Amino acid sequence: MNQGIALSDVRITDGFFSRYASLVRTEVIPYQWAALNDRIPGAEKSGCIRNFRIAAGKEEGEFTGMVFQDSDLGKWLEAVAYSLTTNPDAQLEATADEVIELVASAQREDGYLDTYFIVKEPKNRWKNIRDCHELYCAGHLLEAAVAYFRATGKRRFLDVMSRYMDCILTVFGTEAGKIPGYPGHEELELALCKLYDVTGESKYLRLAKYFIDQRGQQPLFFIEELKTRGDTFHWENNDGYDLRYFQAHEPVRQQQDAVGHAVRAVYLYTGMADVAMRTQDEELKAACRRLFRSIVDKRMYVTGAIGSTHEGEAFTFDYDLPNDTAYAETCASIGLIFFMKRMLQMDHDAIYADVMERALYNTVLAGMGLDGKAFFYVNPLEVLPEASREDPGKHHVKPERQKWFACACCPPNVARLLSDLGEYIYQQDDCGVTVNLFIGSRVQLDGMTLTQTSGVPFDGRVQLTISCAGEKTTVLRVRKPFWAGAVSASLPYTEDKGYLVFDRVWRDGDALTLDFEMPVRRVYANPLVRQDLGKVALMRGPLVYCIEQADHGPNLHLLSLKQDAPVAVLTLPDGPLCGLPALTAPGVRLAPDGSALYRSEPLRAAEPARLTFVPYFAWGNRGLGEMAVWVRE
Amino acid sequence: MNQGIALSDVRITDGFFSRYASLVRTEVIPYQWAALNDRIPGAEKSGCIRNFRIAAGKEEGEFTGMVFQDSDLGKWLEAVAYSLTTNPDAQLEATADEVIELVASAQREDGYLDTYFIVKEPKNRWKNIRDCHELYCAGHLLEAAVAYFRATGKRRFLDVMSRYMDCILTVFGTEAGKIPGYPGHEELELALCKLYDVTGESKYLRLAKYFIDQRGQQPLFFIEELKTRGDTFHWENNDGYDLRYFQAHEPVRQQQDAVGHAVRAVYLYTGMADVAMRTQDEELKAACRRLFRSIVDKRMYVTGAIGSTHEGEAFTFDYDLPNDTAYAETCASIGLIFFMKRMLQMDHDAIYADVMERALYNTVLAGMGLDGKAFFYVNPLEVLPEASREDPGKHHVKPERQKWFACACCPPNVARLLSDLGEYIYQQDDCGVTVNLFIGSRVQLDGMTLTQTSGVPFDGRVQLTISCAGEKTTVLRVRKPFWAGAVSASLPYTEDKGYLVFDRVWRDGDALTLDFEMPVRRVYANPLVRQDLGKVALMRGPLVYCIEQADHGPNLHLLSLKQDAPVAVLTLPDGPLCGLPALTAPGVRLAPDGSALYRSEPLRAAEPARLTFVPYFAWGNRGLGEMAVWVRE
Repeated sequence: MNQGIALSDVRITDGFFSRYASLVRTEVIPYQWAALNDRIPGAEKSGCIRNFRIAAGKEEGEFTGMVFQDSDLGKWLEAVAYSLTTNPDAQLEATADEVIELVASAQREDGYLDTYFIVKEPKNRWKNIRDCHELYCAGHLLEAAVAYFRATGKRRFLDVMSRYMDCILTVFGTEAGKIPGYPGHEELELALCKLYDVTGESKYLRLAKYFIDQRGQQPLFFIEELKTRGDTFHWENNDGYDLRYFQAHEPVRQQQDAVGHAVRAVYLYTGMADVAMRTQDEELKAACRRLFRSIVDKRMYVTGAIGSTHEGEAFTFDYDLPNDTAYAETCASIGLIFFMKRMLQMDHDAIYADVMERALYNTVLAGMGLDGKAFFYVNPLEVLPEASREDPGKHHVKPERQKWFACACCPPNVARLLSDLGEYIYQQDDCGVTVNLFIGSRVQLDGMTLTQTSGVPFDGRVQLTISCAGEKTTVLRVRKPFWAGAVSASLPYTEDKGYLVFDRVWRDGDALTLDFEMPVRRVYANPLVRQDLGKVALMRGPLVYCIEQADHGPNLHLLSLKQDAPVAVLTLPDGPLCGLPALTAPGVRLAPDGSALYRSEPLRAAEPARLTFVPYFAWGNRGLGEMAVWVRE
Repeated sequence: MNQGIALSDVRITDGFFSRYASLVRTEVIPYQWAALNDRIPGAEKSGCIRNFRIAAGKEEGEFTGMVFQDSDLGKWLEAVAYSLTTNPDAQLEATADEVIELVASAQREDGYLDTYFIVKEPKNRWKNIRDCHELYCAGHLLEAAVAYFRATGKRRFLDVMSRYMDCILTVFGTEAGKIPGYPGHEELELALCKLYDVTGESKYLRLAKYFIDQRGQQPLFFIEELKTRGDTFHWENNDGYDLRYFQAHEPVRQQQDAVGHAVRAVYLYTGMADVAMRTQDEELKAACRRLFRSIVDKRMYVTGAIGSTHEGEAFTFDYDLPNDTAYAETCASIGLIFFMKRMLQMDHDAIYADVMERALYNTVLAGMGLDGKAFFYVNPLEVLPEASREDPGKHHVKPERQKWFACACCPPNVARLLSDLGEYIYQQDDCGVTVNLFIGSRVQLDGMTLTQTSGVPFDGRVQLTISCAGEKTTVLRVRKPFWAGAVSASLPYTEDKGYLVFDRVWRDGDALTLDFEMPVRRVYANPLVRQDLGKVALMRGPLVYCIEQADHGPNLHLLSLKQDAPVAVLTLPDGPLCGLPALTAPGVRLAPDGSALYRSEPLRAAEPARLTFVPYFAWGNRGLGEMAVWVRE
């Protein structure tokens, strides 16, 4: 199996995304480092670094924060590794080396490395796998270690984490004396595949495969473990969750629907795809495809968001996609992107890149404010600030991005994805060279350099230029995006699985110009999605658009878009969204009359209204107000 | 102030309601007695009677149940008292007498009487007024005592409860050494007014007025009490509630909106109206009217239900009336009926009877199954069984009535209202004789007997016959119901505040025939109710109708009613709803095609469909299925 393109081989030159990568480098990574070190005035203490210091015997004190606090450092170090790859920074690297030494010094003799249990509950190691995130934290630290090794070539962190994995290998398994368990929050499975890739040690792949295959087997481990613990839980109110929350209700190969906690689900599916590809496991691949179809055909928002309910941060049931109570967590869409990357490697079908692009340009980017300083965890498709304030069922729906969170999960996840974006644009394997995302960049491939310029997401012109010594025969596959109208290419092509296929001999300086028409698209949900019936969403390119109170005043629900009316594209001339495109179209605003709550005549009084749609990823940057993606038509 | 009509003066002869009263007598009261005595096989133990036995020293053991378990006995005894009034039953009365002796023997020397604190936390009396329902339980037992005294003339229970009130009088107040508190769950206020009415003791009215006036005064008692307790709570997760939950955030006279826990709110407003009328307090009356308008203009479902969210079982904000996540508790509509009864006495305006009738015929009756054996707490206006199962945000919405509940609040409340219904039909005071509800019955008034026959809720013919010795000069006011089309009366009338006024000399045998045309009405919500925009509900008479899966198959949301199409009325010929009216009308069913979740064409394919609407109160009697009140038009 080909491991794809290394981040170091890609340089992003895209104006749109460079800005985001730069924000991650200049805002998010430094801010997060300060947060991990409890240096943000007024913010709740993270305690993360201090926990490691206490575990290492360098400081006295109590453990601070959540049981999964260690994972924050893992995500930060992973983002740092990617950042160092694309933007070397000796000072940042020195800081990272130092904290890696701290991590190493916290490690126990036997390789164990989880500060919560080292500091707070030393007797309870591996006693509550279901709730306590030991294997999850191990996974994030391991991902960071692999990324840091790839970025710097330094083995220190990788060795520390390999020792920890060797410890875990002695603890988990179906053999007598071992714990027949698996992660309560999946993550380690995919991380172990990365460790296998850089070390070639098959024991790590076997451990990943064990975790995947053991999950949901009878007798159900989480039930058995609970009995052993005497029905105690780490989290309050956690006993209400059934095992679907953990995707641990039945063996993963038998699972038909994407269920439970959405982040857990897509991390699991990512690990499943990783294992399936590395072991040529067709049954497991089929399960991945089936779970993908469950998401994409029945359980995904038009923004590429997943998770219909905040209770359990979970999937609910087919076609249940409430806009105003959505969970639609930023991290879940990031996990979906991880999953899509694997499925692209597995099946070479552009549909996975379509979903990846949808999630990236809408939910992931919406997760971060335009200034890189504030974040959404929850990405609703409809917001009424009064409801967020007064309806406890919508308290999770924040109408404004928040500065940081006690559970610092989404911001570092955004940081690690955006700083690693180079790994998602291209693919090189037996099928040739594939262009999945249209992001301006230059990539070093076997024997050639490919340079991409792209107007996406604002216009559909893409140029690819080849540079090579002499000639290079290879298949170049360029995704034909789902949003394209007419397609024209400057070279002849065939089509396969959603790609334009250019199978030819390339010469230095060859250029390929693609014009993907980017019409405004009226999008309708399947009528079984009851929340969207009678409504329309506008898309142009990969971007979903929305209406905001800033342009229309309150009571957005009174607005409707005229059927078949032309939609114009313009560039916003000023304000916080200056330079972004907007869509405008004629519509109608119902004009409420009278104060009776119930009446015998429907409201028919209406006045013409001009509707303005702005990119969804940029919503909530103009003060508190209502927002809606789906508009009556 | 006139205290209205005694229950003993009214005999209900109405076919529709006699059936319900009979179910209460033959099913609910005996079942509940068995439940209070832990004699229901398979049901969770109530422990209620046993708690009293333990408190009385007649049995050893631990307290069982909720902190408000005593109130179950209060509600049961109150229902029994009403039942004995209308249907004397020596055996039931003997049972009641016996349990009243048990209650008396549990009372402490100083009058205190709450089994939870007597048995379980003797040191913590009056330490957590906010959470622990001592004053609430006292209120329900007191209501029962007054009802039992009125029903039987026996003073025993009344004396016990008067002693308890005298104890409470020594404990609460703003004087030095007293607790400046007030009920965490309102109820005692209205009960004290009843005690004042039967005893004439002004100290009880003063205590009620104190509780009303002290509520929400600075410094806020519930905050101060919390500090004293060291921020501990009786209920898990209760710390999230702000004081609006208790209507204790500001003095009640200043409150503008109906807020917080809906049952608490309407019990409070009932007590406010009781005190305002008995003290001629115009400011307090104005507050009652204002809070009524908040409910009826902005926060009430078309079914007369209140409470838009299950978290806190509470009001949310203006025009927020979600159909599928409604709390709409049966008890809250019962409390609203209590409130309306007082407002009718206060203002003699038919609008209060309109609201009373709306809540009674729809939400209260829906609360009980047609067999009297199963109950809804939550009365949603839209149900999707899959959502109730799979969406944690809708777990509170039961698609089928439940047999009983650990927190047995709604069934006994339904029982005490339906067995006391005779007190709600008529009013006699300085304005004359008023007919508020159209329920077949005979009432003894000063110097005359009035006999009513009524086709409501199925047809609008009402006949009133007077029987008196010689002549009787009085004003007869008959409500002109909000649902009436053309009105005709066999005698001349004027109109006042929503009433037809017949001011004349009545002679024995005089008859008044009223024909209230009962057209099918299409009802539309104020367009600011975003959940109902573009939808219509059908009413005929006081009944709201709904569509059910039993008549249409699944996916009710795909159905729409044709605008301006005629709606026919028929009588259901068979099945569980046999004999009930139904409405039928031509409609359209969207015909889903294709499986894509998102598409570029709206669904326009549709087929004709005949829609059948059944009375909302009878929904859920034909197996598990979808239901909807609001239908697209």
